[in-house]
Amino acid sequence: MITDFAKLDRAFNPRTVVVIGDKGDNKYMWLTTQSEFKGNLYSVQIAPQEFEGIEALGVKNYTSLMDVPGPVDLVIVSVPRVVAPRVLDDCIRKDVAAAHFFTSGFAETSTEEGINLEKILTQKAAAANFHLVGPNCMGIFNPLSGVKQSPSQYSGISGPIGFISQSGTHAVNFSIEANLHGLNINKSVSFGNGIVLDSADYLEYFGRDEDIKAIGIYIEGPKDGQRFFRVLKDVAAKKPVVIWKGGRTDAGSRAIASHTGSLAAQAAIWDAAVRQCGAVTAANLDELVDILKAIIFLKPVKGDRVAVTGGSGGLSVAVADAFAEAGLSLPKLTQKSYDEFATFFSLIGGGYQNPVDTGNANAREMKRILDILEADENIDNIVLLLTARFKSMYLTDKIINATVDVRNASPKPVAAIVSHSFSPEYVGNAQTLINKLQEGGIPTFVSLERGAQAIRKTFEYYRMKNGR
Amino acid sequence: MITDFAKLDRAFNPRTVVVIGDKGDNKYMWLTTQSEFKGNLYSVQIAPQEFEGIEALGVKNYTSLMDVPGPVDLVIVSVPRVVAPRVLDDCIRKDVAAAHFFTSGFAETSTEEGINLEKILTQKAAAANFHLVGPNCMGIFNPLSGVKQSPSQYSGISGPIGFISQSGTHAVNFSIEANLHGLNINKSVSFGNGIVLDSADYLEYFGRDEDIKAIGIYIEGPKDGQRFFRVLKDVAAKKPVVIWKGGRTDAGSRAIASHTGSLAAQAAIWDAAVRQCGAVTAANLDELVDILKAIIFLKPVKGDRVAVTGGSGGLSVAVADAFAEAGLSLPKLTQKSYDEFATFFSLIGGGYQNPVDTGNANAREMKRILDILEADENIDNIVLLLTARFKSMYLTDKIINATVDVRNASPKPVAAIVSHSFSPEYVGNAQTLINKLQEGGIPTFVSLERGAQAIRKTFEYYRMKNGR
Repeated sequence: MITDFAKLDRAFNPRTVVVIGDKGDNKYMWLTTQSEFKGNLYSVQIAPQEFEGIEALGVKNYTSLMDVPGPVDLVIVSVPRVVAPRVLDDCIRKDVAAAHFFTSGFAETSTEEGINLEKILTQKAAAANFHLVGPNCMGIFNPLSGVKQSPSQYSGISGPIGFISQSGTHAVNFSIEANLHGLNINKSVSFGNGIVLDSADYLEYFGRDEDIKAIGIYIEGPKDGQRFFRVLKDVAAKKPVVIWKGGRTDAGSRAIASHTGSLAAQAAIWDAAVRQCGAVTAANLDELVDILKAIIFLKPVKGDRVAVTGGSGGLSVAVADAFAEAGLSLPKLTQKSYDEFATFFSLIGGGYQNPVDTGNANAREMKRILDILEADENIDNIVLLLTARFKSMYLTDKIINATVDVRNASPKPVAAIVSHSFSPEYVGNAQTLINKLQEGGIPTFVSLERGAQAIRKTFEYYRMKNGR
Repeated sequence: MITDFAKLDRAFNPRTVVVIGDKGDNKYMWLTTQSEFKGNLYSVQIAPQEFEGIEALGVKNYTSLMDVPGPVDLVIVSVPRVVAPRVLDDCIRKDVAAAHFFTSGFAETSTEEGINLEKILTQKAAAANFHLVGPNCMGIFNPLSGVKQSPSQYSGISGPIGFISQSGTHAVNFSIEANLHGLNINKSVSFGNGIVLDSADYLEYFGRDEDIKAIGIYIEGPKDGQRFFRVLKDVAAKKPVVIWKGGRTDAGSRAIASHTGSLAAQAAIWDAAVRQCGAVTAANLDELVDILKAIIFLKPVKGDRVAVTGGSGGLSVAVADAFAEAGLSLPKLTQKSYDEFATFFSLIGGGYQNPVDTGNANAREMKRILDILEADENIDNIVLLLTARFKSMYLTDKIINATVDVRNASPKPVAAIVSHSFSPEYVGNAQTLINKLQEGGIPTFVSLERGAQAIRKTFEYYRMKNGR
């Protein structure tokens, strides 16, 4: 396979998309998913009983791909597995830029028929150097153009993240979860069995795409490990890459076999190889979101020493434990800082070791507190704590503005953590705070553990980058 | 100090509560907090400028505690620290059952004045065998009687949990968070500096209370370690006790010094001592909620072998990893089970190793799937996966009903995990599912990692209990 990046460009920014085999039985899932697509959308379906349903969606149907007018950039294939090879023949004959095979039931089923059909697809695509995405996957998501993997995804906006996923579930979940945390996708691909285009191809492509500032990956196992790590090293030298490896345990590896049929690697060996390439490891989807967010937003993290402010005395202990357990240090401040605090800090109900509690009247002095921490030589990073159970948005706004001012003026990384509770109201409040803080360039995390871990991983990223 | 449990009974189920020193400056915080209290609520305040504000709350004010009519069960003290000893004298003279000192600024400030004042309070209380809660704390919460630690707490309902906390923030946060996860407080105390009544006293008291079925503790350090562990062993033999220790790291220990002034113990030694007593350790507030929930709801966990069903193929790998990393096993099912699955399971888009995927049509057969898992000899525990992004509540209800039926008929523990996203809508949906499942006796957790960890810890609890 010789990857033609111009063809991938067409597939990821399509002007014409054709869905083959969508049916009323699956509620015309793929045509519906593309309802916000800004280009030409056509259907190919030969079953007469489907014609009316397709036309009702406002989509023109053809009974052959060859009849679709003009060049086709992306075909989405949703036919039974036995029909898949014939559809691939048509795609090759029509010279479409790429085809995404949603169709599953191949090698991942461990059946003779599935394995044979997969072999046929692979051989046909290889012979024609055809750009096949999948099979057994959710394909391409480009929110700006409106090509989606699921109706629950957003469109009309764009972000800095490229996402590559061996799992359709994780591709969709990541895009939704990251968006809810204020981090948006530029381009994403779910590639499933990856029989033709594999992880390394998408990685190379996203590495060249200047709109993509950081890359997230969910992978179960690359087909060609050597090539994957070679490409990873090249791309990680240009932009941050964060990788969540599925199947880190024996039980996980067994589950992989029936999911995408990939070979599993031992977790420790995998992690070492990833770090060797200058990329960052993540343990799950939340961590992937958090680390990408931290890397995109934070100024370079130059050390592990953190000052934390905000919150009450009871929380301080939990803060200190969470940061220390993530491998960050909360050192004492300089005597100069303590002397300055002593001139105005209310002692009762607050403390100014580190964390600097502001559970009481001290919260009103946040600009002064942050300026002291900014100037403190013992401190590399500043973290603000806020609660989503706020009483006065006026005071909260004042605190946020002060923090944004310090963030803009200082070379030190500034992050925030919003503690909340498991309720729609608190999560809504937390999102309001997250949006305000992130508009001001301050990455905001939703728990102590998650914030501490994201900062720690970003520190590791800069340490690798600077060859330490 | 000789603990008089009859006096604690009066303090935790008061008929008359008096707030001393509440002021307009703090928005009459303590009188407002008790606005749902079902008994007699009085104020003692000598400052004339406060009289009008207190009367406006519908609360009768006296200028001396001695003037309050009848016996007083609980006094809440919110005066400046220098006045605290005089107020304690009055409480002793009036023979009130117990007094909660919200007042802070004692040994936790590491100042001479604070340390001296704390010594005076301690000596006066000791001489009179007076039941002093605190100081520097949020006191008592009994939702049924409406005595609260914070206006944000609930009232009018009651649950099975006793909660003992050295931190007021954690006491309040735990009650709110646990409630949002469907687990309610019976009685809770925040005891701060614990200069008279300490953790062991409350533990002994809650141990004797038959309405309390399980006890949660947040502790930074007991004053008398030997007595604490002796009491813990006694109580843990009667009911489950789960302990979150603050200050597990050096940084956390330093933060403790300025919070409650307790001595920190090394984490590993502490954990070993807790387990020796038959109690369970938790690493943070979320884990405390989850483990208590698991222990309250689950039938005895007899082994570490788990079958998981629900969710799609992509999720299976993450499920297997999360459970394996928590120290649980996801074994293969018996051949008998696989043979039964083969008679009806749709292979494409699903798999029936373990986890048993039901991302497709198989979800409609949940009762059959669960019955097979229930009968499988390789399986000790059953876990159902659901998503809060449900399309049809009809199918979800069908799945929940099937699971409740199996839970009721089987001696095997049955739990559920609801995956969701960080949005008010999904969290609202997740709560709907959690409530339905927990009404049916199935503890429900909000992430794979949290669910796996709670089941693992419950397994450890039963292993200790059965002396293995």
